[in-house]
Amino acid sequence: MSSEVITSRAEDYSRWYTDVVQRADLADYAPVRGCMIIKPYGYALWENIQQALDSRFKATGHQNAYFPLFIPESFLNKEKEHVEGFSPELAVVTIGGGEELQERLVVRPTSETIIGYSMAKWIQSYRDLPLLLNQWANVVRWEMRTRLFLRTMEFLWQEGHTAHATHDEAEEETLRMLGVYYDVYFNEAAIPGIKGRKSNQEKFAGALRSYSIEAMMGDKRALQACTSHNLGQNFAKAFEIQYTDENNALQHAWTTSWGLSTRMVGAVIMTHGDDQGLRLPPRIAPIQVVIVPIGKNDDERTQVLPIANALFDELKANGVRVKLDTRFELSPGFKYNDWEMRGVPIRVEIGPKDVQNGTVAVARRDVPGKAGKQFVPREGLLPFLKQLLEDIHGSLLRQATEFRDSHIHEVADDYGTFCEILKEGWAYTWFCGSATCEAKVKEDNQAVSRNFPLDQERGKGKCIVCGTECDERALFAKAY
Amino acid sequence: MSSEVITSRAEDYSRWYTDVVQRADLADYAPVRGCMIIKPYGYALWENIQQALDSRFKATGHQNAYFPLFIPESFLNKEKEHVEGFSPELAVVTIGGGEELQERLVVRPTSETIIGYSMAKWIQSYRDLPLLLNQWANVVRWEMRTRLFLRTMEFLWQEGHTAHATHDEAEEETLRMLGVYYDVYFNEAAIPGIKGRKSNQEKFAGALRSYSIEAMMGDKRALQACTSHNLGQNFAKAFEIQYTDENNALQHAWTTSWGLSTRMVGAVIMTHGDDQGLRLPPRIAPIQVVIVPIGKNDDERTQVLPIANALFDELKANGVRVKLDTRFELSPGFKYNDWEMRGVPIRVEIGPKDVQNGTVAVARRDVPGKAGKQFVPREGLLPFLKQLLEDIHGSLLRQATEFRDSHIHEVADDYGTFCEILKEGWAYTWFCGSATCEAKVKEDNQAVSRNFPLDQERGKGKCIVCGTECDERALFAKAY
Repeated sequence: MSSEVITSRAEDYSRWYTDVVQRADLADYAPVRGCMIIKPYGYALWENIQQALDSRFKATGHQNAYFPLFIPESFLNKEKEHVEGFSPELAVVTIGGGEELQERLVVRPTSETIIGYSMAKWIQSYRDLPLLLNQWANVVRWEMRTRLFLRTMEFLWQEGHTAHATHDEAEEETLRMLGVYYDVYFNEAAIPGIKGRKSNQEKFAGALRSYSIEAMMGDKRALQACTSHNLGQNFAKAFEIQYTDENNALQHAWTTSWGLSTRMVGAVIMTHGDDQGLRLPPRIAPIQVVIVPIGKNDDERTQVLPIANALFDELKANGVRVKLDTRFELSPGFKYNDWEMRGVPIRVEIGPKDVQNGTVAVARRDVPGKAGKQFVPREGLLPFLKQLLEDIHGSLLRQATEFRDSHIHEVADDYGTFCEILKEGWAYTWFCGSATCEAKVKEDNQAVSRNFPLDQERGKGKCIVCGTECDERALFAKAY
Repeated sequence: MSSEVITSRAEDYSRWYTDVVQRADLADYAPVRGCMIIKPYGYALWENIQQALDSRFKATGHQNAYFPLFIPESFLNKEKEHVEGFSPELAVVTIGGGEELQERLVVRPTSETIIGYSMAKWIQSYRDLPLLLNQWANVVRWEMRTRLFLRTMEFLWQEGHTAHATHDEAEEETLRMLGVYYDVYFNEAAIPGIKGRKSNQEKFAGALRSYSIEAMMGDKRALQACTSHNLGQNFAKAFEIQYTDENNALQHAWTTSWGLSTRMVGAVIMTHGDDQGLRLPPRIAPIQVVIVPIGKNDDERTQVLPIANALFDELKANGVRVKLDTRFELSPGFKYNDWEMRGVPIRVEIGPKDVQNGTVAVARRDVPGKAGKQFVPREGLLPFLKQLLEDIHGSLLRQATEFRDSHIHEVADDYGTFCEILKEGWAYTWFCGSATCEAKVKEDNQAVSRNFPLDQERGKGKCIVCGTECDERALFAKAY
C-alpha cells in the first residue's frame, strides 16, 4: 500500500530509499541473498532507459550481439589485473548435467575476456576495424552488502566492447560513449552528471584509463552508474587481438569497454525523490500523466467518465504514456498519495464541477501542494500537458543542478578545511592522484576521489594531501 | 567469406544448416561447449522477432519484469514432475565469493518456481488477478548434443507467467498466447505453423496441458520453437499462490506459462533457406533492401553513387531497413552471392546504363536467377519496393505452405502405411495418446506425436497403433 507514510529523508536516508523502492513497486528482495526482483513498474523505467541508450548506440554505429553467460575460468587468468580485480567476486558453476565439470565455469562478472576471445577470431585486417559491439545482459558479482538497484549480486546492464587500430581512436570512442551517457543522464533522466577520469586506484581492473559520470544523490553521496574504459592493448595482448595494417604488418588492436547498469534506476530515485516518494523525469517515466476521475456516486461518475475516457484516448493517440485510474472504491486522497509515491509527473483530476466548468485540475509532481495545482480548460489540454512535461524535465534538472552546485566546495590548500567539507558535501581540489594520498583521504574521511573532471580550467596547484605540484583538480566525496 | 559454396540441402541437410548459420554470420560456436555467440546479424534478426512479440504482449495487457538468474535448489524440489523433468539438465553454482555455498544455486532452466514464489507474495485477493507477467531472459539447460540456435546450453527467450482465478481463464490465456505466437509465425516470419495440444508424454514437466506450434522444416522434420502451458494448480499448490475470492474464501490460483526462444531463428532458416543460403521474411529481415552501385572506374562510380545515395536516403527516411554496399574492391558477382547468402529479400543494382535509362535492376531473393530480376523505373521506386516486400512475404508463406501440405499425409488405419509415411514426411492420424502407443511409434520410427491439431474436424476413429476408439487425430513426425 503505497499511501502509507514512508521514513523521511532527514530521519534515515537509507531507510527512505528502501521504503520508496518497495512502496513504489519498483523492486523486491529475492529469495537468494543479494538478488533482486525487478517489478513491472521498475522494469518499465529500465526499459525506457534502455531504449534511450540503444537508439544512441545504433546511431553511433554500434551493433548488438550476444556472448555466453559462462566463461572458462582460464580466460580470466589471462589478464593479470583483471583476474585480481574480479576473483573475489565470482560465482562458479562446478556441476553441469549432474556431473562435476573438468573446467569450472565462471558466471560472467563482465565480458572483456570472452569478447576478447571472439574479437581475436573475427579481426584479421585493418578493414575489420573499428569493430563496434554492444550487448544487453545480466552479470553476477558476489557482493556481501547489497541494496536494491545500487548493489546487487546479479544486475542488468549493457556492455559495449570495441576494437580500434590506434590508441587515439580507442580514446576517442571511450570519450564518445561517455558523452552518450552524459546525454542520457542530462536529457532523459534530468541528472546533471560530471564527466571525469578515474584515478589509477579507482579505475577498472585491466584498463589503461577509466572515465565515469558522477552524480550527487539527495544525501550528497556520489553515485556512479556508468563507466567508459580505454583498455589500451591489455586485452588485445592477453587474447591476441591482432590485425594486419595497410603495410601488411601485424599489430595489436586497441580496445574499449563501457557499461551502464540498473544502478541508474537508483540514481534517478536518489536525485529526484522527496519525502512523498519518487519524482520521475517525464522523458523516462513509465506513466507520464495519470487521470483520476472523481465521483461520489453513479450519477457523478456518469458525468466524469466520458471526459476522462476521451482525454485518455487523446493523450494515448498522441504518444503520451497515460494511465486512467478508475478505482472508485478508493478515496481521491489515497489515490493522489499513491501516484505521488510512484512519481508520476502530472496528475489530472476530473470532478463533476470540472465537467460543468469545462476544466480539469492539473497537479505537477515537482511542485508540492497547492502551488503545483491549477485549473486548466479542457480545450487545448494536450499541448498544455506536453509543454508541462517539458517544463517538469527542466525544473527537475534545475533543482538537481542547484542542489549539486551548492554542495560542491572548491578548496585550495587546507587539508583541515577539505576534511570538514567532506563531512557534508563534495570537495573539488588539486590532487596528485597517488595511491598514498588516496589512501590517506579514505582513512581520514571514508571518502575517495570520484574523478578528475574533464571540464576544468588547466593550471597548476599543490596536491591537497602531500603538497606536490600537480596540474589537475579532482572531486572527492563519500560514495555509494 | 559468405560467397564460398555451401553444402547443398540434398547432400547433407545438417551441414547445410551449419554452413548457412556460419556463412551468413548469424552465430558462432563459443569456447564453452554447447554455448553460442549470437553475431550482430543474427542478433538483429532476434531483435525484430522480440519486437514483434513484445508489442503484442503489451497489447494483450502483459507487463515485463525481471526475476533472478539463480534459484535455490530447494525451490525446484517443490513440484515433483518439474524437478524430475529438469534435474538432469541443471547447471549448479556451488562456489560464490571464493566460498562453498550452504545452499547450492541452480542457474534457471525456466522460472516457474521463482516466479511462483513471488506470485504467492504479491497475490492476496481476487482483485490482484489476473496477474500477467513476461520476462526476457537467458536460461541454461545442460544439453549434451547441441546445435546453433536449435539446441544450445544457454539460450535467450521470453517466458510469460500468469495467474488467474479459474481454470477456464487460465485455459483462455494459454490459448490466447498460443494465438499470439501463431500470429508472429504467420504474419512476421511467413511460417505456416500448426497449433495443437501436446500428448501427455510430450507436455511440459509440471503442466496440466501443453500446447505448441509445429512447423515443417526443409528436411521435413518438425520444429517447435514455442509452447504455451496451462499449469493448472500444480505450481499454485507447490508455492501456495492463494487468493481470497469474492466470498472471502481462500482459493488456489490457476497459472500459465509460455515461451518462445532463439530456436525461432533456426525455424526461419530451415523453413525458407535454399542452396544459395538464407531467405529472410521481409518483415523481420535486418536488411530488407540492399543497394549495390556498380562502377568499373571512378568515372562510372561518379555517375552511379549519387543515385544510390539518394535512393538509400529515401528508403531509410521511409522506414525501409536498407544497406548501401559500396565495396567497389569486390566484384558485383561476389557481392550478389554475399547478399543472397544473407537472405536479403530485395537487391537493387545501379550501373551506368541504368543511370542513362532512368532505371534500376531489382532482384528478388525468393525467385532465383533471371526470372527474379527486372528493370524498374527509378521514378516511383519506393512504393514499388514496399509492395514487393509484401509480395515476397506472401510468396515465402505460400511456398512454405505448399511444401508443408504436400508432405503431410492423412492415414486412416494402416500402421504399415503410417510407418512408410514417417520415413519421408508427417502422418496425420487417429491417436489414443497413451504412453505405450507413443513409445511404440518412437521405437519403430524415431518419430513422436507432435501435437493434436486444434483445427480438426471432430469425429471418431481407431488409434493407429492399438486400435482403441478415440476422438482426436494427431500429427506425427521426426523432430528437432
